[in-house]
Amino acid sequence: MLKQLYQPPLALLTDLYQLTMAYGYWKLGRADQQAVFHLFFRKPPFKGGYAISAGLQQAIDYLDVYRFDESDINYLAELTGNDGQPLFEQGFLDALHDLKLCVDVDAMPEGTVTFGQEPMLRVKGPILQCQLLETPLLNMINFQTLVATKASRIRAAAGNDPVLEFGLRRAQGIDGAISASRAAYIGGCAATSNVLAGKMFGIPVKGTHAHSWVMSFDSELESFERYAEVMPNNCVFLVDTYDTIEGVRQACQAGKLLRQRGHEMVGIRLDSGDLAYLSIEARRILDEEGFPNATIVASNDLDEHIIENLKNQGAQIAVWGVGTKLATAFDQPALGGVYKLAALQREDGSWEPKVKLSEQAIKTSIPGILQVRRYQSDQGLIGDMIYDETLGIDSREIIVDSKDTTRRKRLANHAQAYDLLIPMMRNGVRVGETEPLETIRTRAIEQLQLVHPTIRRFMNPHEYPVGLDISLHEVRDFMIQEKRDPQWGE
Amino acid sequence: MLKQLYQPPLALLTDLYQLTMAYGYWKLGRADQQAVFHLFFRKPPFKGGYAISAGLQQAIDYLDVYRFDESDINYLAELTGNDGQPLFEQGFLDALHDLKLCVDVDAMPEGTVTFGQEPMLRVKGPILQCQLLETPLLNMINFQTLVATKASRIRAAAGNDPVLEFGLRRAQGIDGAISASRAAYIGGCAATSNVLAGKMFGIPVKGTHAHSWVMSFDSELESFERYAEVMPNNCVFLVDTYDTIEGVRQACQAGKLLRQRGHEMVGIRLDSGDLAYLSIEARRILDEEGFPNATIVASNDLDEHIIENLKNQGAQIAVWGVGTKLATAFDQPALGGVYKLAALQREDGSWEPKVKLSEQAIKTSIPGILQVRRYQSDQGLIGDMIYDETLGIDSREIIVDSKDTTRRKRLANHAQAYDLLIPMMRNGVRVGETEPLETIRTRAIEQLQLVHPTIRRFMNPHEYPVGLDISLHEVRDFMIQEKRDPQWGE
Repeated sequence: MLKQLYQPPLALLTDLYQLTMAYGYWKLGRADQQAVFHLFFRKPPFKGGYAISAGLQQAIDYLDVYRFDESDINYLAELTGNDGQPLFEQGFLDALHDLKLCVDVDAMPEGTVTFGQEPMLRVKGPILQCQLLETPLLNMINFQTLVATKASRIRAAAGNDPVLEFGLRRAQGIDGAISASRAAYIGGCAATSNVLAGKMFGIPVKGTHAHSWVMSFDSELESFERYAEVMPNNCVFLVDTYDTIEGVRQACQAGKLLRQRGHEMVGIRLDSGDLAYLSIEARRILDEEGFPNATIVASNDLDEHIIENLKNQGAQIAVWGVGTKLATAFDQPALGGVYKLAALQREDGSWEPKVKLSEQAIKTSIPGILQVRRYQSDQGLIGDMIYDETLGIDSREIIVDSKDTTRRKRLANHAQAYDLLIPMMRNGVRVGETEPLETIRTRAIEQLQLVHPTIRRFMNPHEYPVGLDISLHEVRDFMIQEKRDPQWGE
Repeated sequence: MLKQLYQPPLALLTDLYQLTMAYGYWKLGRADQQAVFHLFFRKPPFKGGYAISAGLQQAIDYLDVYRFDESDINYLAELTGNDGQPLFEQGFLDALHDLKLCVDVDAMPEGTVTFGQEPMLRVKGPILQCQLLETPLLNMINFQTLVATKASRIRAAAGNDPVLEFGLRRAQGIDGAISASRAAYIGGCAATSNVLAGKMFGIPVKGTHAHSWVMSFDSELESFERYAEVMPNNCVFLVDTYDTIEGVRQACQAGKLLRQRGHEMVGIRLDSGDLAYLSIEARRILDEEGFPNATIVASNDLDEHIIENLKNQGAQIAVWGVGTKLATAFDQPALGGVYKLAALQREDGSWEPKVKLSEQAIKTSIPGILQVRRYQSDQGLIGDMIYDETLGIDSREIIVDSKDTTRRKRLANHAQAYDLLIPMMRNGVRVGETEPLETIRTRAIEQLQLVHPTIRRFMNPHEYPVGLDISLHEVRDFMIQEKRDPQWGE
């Protein structure tokens, strides 16, 4: 996916401070010290109750071709500090030039339903390498997870109706559009308008004509008739260039012409005005004129809330075209995913967990080499346990820290349990096959059905139980106390 | 710029309906009919009074390498309609394969201060080509203009303080980040954290260390001292990993060590907590400890409004790191730029203006082959006139249509006048040199100084006068009446 679009290498796609820290580790002889970092978000986006993981394939593709080329090294050699001297020594630059990734990556497969605080991806390897990868991994996974989640909400609002993604023209840059098309498909969209995304990923593509087509003819009717003539097997007439109701009637005229020639009009599209009123009127006219099977497609600044509202008003819309609000995740255009150091290997080979404190409890990190175990019964998902692989699992009890309370929750004995982080890379080499996009999309759709509707709802969703294994919770509490009051642990 | 990052060809980076319409024009023998399209936005973003144009260089780069390759054609050949038959005839696909762009493009240079309804870019050429280019042009120019505008607002709030762009990790995809870094620099940022953007565009890069550096040592002090040891010419200590005030004191200790070795600490960075309070305390401690020149850098969800507010509270912050809110244009992550057909050539060579109506007056388009003339006095910009090149300019009077009123405004006689749309491509060939990024950035900064402060302010800005030339206004009014009531003009 990445190589199809970009010219590698892209190793400089990182924040400068990753390189200055890498330099520091190298200078101190710590470049190869083993570390563990986790990538996670704290709260699901859109004030919702869940997210759909996405972006992993691009991330692994990125790691797969990771290298610094000659021109990268030359560029870094030119950077200077506040004394006008080079930032980096040549020895470090040589090390970068020779760098071969040897990290282990474990991650949730794309399309996994995920919740706040859970590691979605874990990187284990030399601290220098882990650090350099922070920024690009966040860039790819933050955005695609955000859009997949938005798409799944829009799909939920649309019920069984297909949702088409039309975001290319307003998306944030070229691959802001292309990766949005892919993520939107994972989240449940049925097709995209973006032809390049269609070609790259095999996503179905949809589109017929725009206002400019209509305007380029002397009359609307002529424009429909000509369209029907040249592309009889793809007729969705856009009816709102001048007057929508009049446009629907003219679409019917063109549709009759089409029928005489042995083709059927697919439908009409509404792109402005009161979509509830206009769709009901359009449906009536289409039915009266003998086109009960003609589909009404609607677009124009739609999102899950507007679709829900239109459905409640009885709008006669069967296909939803969603652009800007989906491709840019308009109401929250960034997922606040972070990537935190959680363990360092000591010289004796044992692991030292690491914690970052914050005045906000939710921002205090979870130390250790973490894994996520999901518990699932016949009724659906019950809860997720974050545990430390070196500590193991204490019991089926999790400790859930909410805003002001800490509560224990026992996960039912009969539930099946499985781990969510799967090996993706070992010693810098990709493990296993690249999943087909359809598999990922199906996973997202099926897993979401296992989530209780109260967690999926848009307004004040119920919180899905994500807690820490008891041993891990104890270790973390101890570490927090120790940091706050260094005498505490003695 | 584009070829450095992407693997061309990218001709499929368009909406499917552009291709189906192109097919329609081709089938009807109209592929080469000359047309004029304008790219513009209706209202400045962020409820502001202006925008800064950006994205043109990438757009021209895109046009420069525009072509369909074998695999694009093969992909299009596989697409089918509702009868399972191919959408496109082979003859059309052959025509695409042989397509050489021959459009003329005129556009505002990047960094131009621009306002609603003004064409930022005009494409004139075969309607088939103009149509295919709509989506990619909108994609590139919408986003980069949005970010350049956001950056200029943030710069305005920061006054003379440098603004650093840190958005890569939360940006919308890889070039959502890279083109945001470039646009942010155009809008007035001083540097970026994005090393690849630094390399590609020569933007200064900045960065020192993160929380993970601090956490990877046994104590915060040790982490600062080791950093000072290995990178003495680039020391901005991040002081909020555990306790901010304590962190400032430890930074001072490391700073003294640094000074003993002949180096100076650049400063400290605050990344959480109450930035007003903490920066004032930090300034006091730094001054007391003998570091009056140490800079206080702040970051953490900043935007123009928070910066303005912190400044009003007397925050002692000298450098502002802005990430997510800038790179994603968080409070309005898409510019609603559109691209509308405005004229078609008749068989006799004359031009027929085209208008699209809408129930919303602001959405009714402006017909003709448009140019924007700007009037400027010693005091700054006075007003912009949109005129039709085929009609010429009637007088120095413009007609400004606001929500409910239409008023005439005379632009002072002594003002100098110049046209904003400059030739960028002729017959598909790039015209003139690519502008250096510094030239563009300087233009944006200098032009903005010519805009009255009431138009630049964040809250309820005054509206800059943009109106139509009198002849153009008359033609447009006539066309609107004629469309609404076809008998009207007879």
